[in-house]
Amino acid sequence: MTDNKQFIFGIHAVAEALEAAKDIDKIFIRRDLNGENVSHILDMAHNLRVPVQRVPVERIDRITRKNHQGVLAMMAAVTYYQLEQLLPQYYDEGINPFVVVLDGVTDVRNFGAIARTCECAGVNAIVIPDHDSVTVNADAVKTSAGALNVLPVCRERNLVQALQLLHDSGFMIVGTSDKNATTYTQPDYTGPVAIVLGAEGNGISPAVMRQCTMRVKIPEFGQINSLNVSVAGGIMMYEVVRQRLSDGQQVK
Amino acid sequence: MTDNKQFIFGIHAVAEALEAAKDIDKIFIRRDLNGENVSHILDMAHNLRVPVQRVPVERIDRITRKNHQGVLAMMAAVTYYQLEQLLPQYYDEGINPFVVVLDGVTDVRNFGAIARTCECAGVNAIVIPDHDSVTVNADAVKTSAGALNVLPVCRERNLVQALQLLHDSGFMIVGTSDKNATTYTQPDYTGPVAIVLGAEGNGISPAVMRQCTMRVKIPEFGQINSLNVSVAGGIMMYEVVRQRLSDGQQVK
Repeated sequence: MTDNKQFIFGIHAVAEALEAAKDIDKIFIRRDLNGENVSHILDMAHNLRVPVQRVPVERIDRITRKNHQGVLAMMAAVTYYQLEQLLPQYYDEGINPFVVVLDGVTDVRNFGAIARTCECAGVNAIVIPDHDSVTVNADAVKTSAGALNVLPVCRERNLVQALQLLHDSGFMIVGTSDKNATTYTQPDYTGPVAIVLGAEGNGISPAVMRQCTMRVKIPEFGQINSLNVSVAGGIMMYEVVRQRLSDGQQVK
Repeated sequence: MTDNKQFIFGIHAVAEALEAAKDIDKIFIRRDLNGENVSHILDMAHNLRVPVQRVPVERIDRITRKNHQGVLAMMAAVTYYQLEQLLPQYYDEGINPFVVVLDGVTDVRNFGAIARTCECAGVNAIVIPDHDSVTVNADAVKTSAGALNVLPVCRERNLVQALQLLHDSGFMIVGTSDKNATTYTQPDYTGPVAIVLGAEGNGISPAVMRQCTMRVKIPEFGQINSLNVSVAGGIMMYEVVRQRLSDGQQVK
């Protein structure tokens, strides 16, 4: 059973993982695959003492039928962080923290796109629950274009408690909603802020929404009115960035 | 060969197409499929005089192996518009136009997400070239959650000429770039505006970029720095919306 084992595939994704010095068990490279990118991977793997095995392509095909380009890395599971560890660091280091919390996002492509956006927008950590959520698997890392190799992911048993902790630590907890809500550009995001994004379709669950101290909506002017969650996340995150830059703050 | 024929599938997508009164050749419904959603489709199809055929599921499976839920509509090809037709209408109707131009976007999921965002942000039309681009096929319509049934799509032979036409019609042509560019929040988008989005990876082609009268960038603060094109599009479009709302304008 290789399904539950963490692996990543594709020349670019594996090179990214090596560059980020992620824990890798082993790398498989198709026997006859060569070229500059492969040499780069071999060099980095050598320096990091990661064993590389040249294998027939069928060996990799048995692990994944996706477009692996002849390169696959079996990963140690991504190291998940805890909010309790990270929060004191932010304050010690004088960081004005910005986190993104996902409630029930299960689509791996959306998760990857959100992680990419978080990484670009200078988000300090992404928080997911340990159930009803994507996990940081091979697909997620690939879809995130490597962002999940550099962006800390907190996996929390209880999202409501996690939000309470953020609230007690001085965060504004911002939930996106389509009703009874302020336009998303109105609140002041220049302080510590957590943006909560809900599942497509269902949105944020009621228990989690109750923890949100600010409910906002992105105005929609069409007939369909269903922004993709990763797009909505990008709009929210860059409103935070816009306000912080206007405020003269350095974003990360 | 059914591959080149336009069709859409899934209960929700087909119902959306009927609601939007799109030209449909024929609807296939799995023989034993019933329920409220199916009745709704049957009623609408009857009113629109669209023939419905009850078929064994294998018949639909032969057309697509995707998750069709037992419902599939063979479409007349989406009616493409021409910018030359639409532009005079905007001015006749006192619309302050807002269009989105895609240069080389080929990923159907990105296209669908961009179309959804356009529809939500009150964009008047989306412009694509007739080559090196997605076409508005079944996957695109489904991924757009029906947005492509209500959002006019202009398919232009020559994107450079189309941008010239927009420019001559008083549009600011805004290209997103990662170099030598103004931060995207700086320009004034309260007048007629065309946002040009480029292919992931290559970005906007040089010939098209030369037509852009304003080059902007979305600031990125990470190590990876590769916003998904649909996310970048959402950030750009909602900056236009934000400015127009601040300006007291009605957005669509």
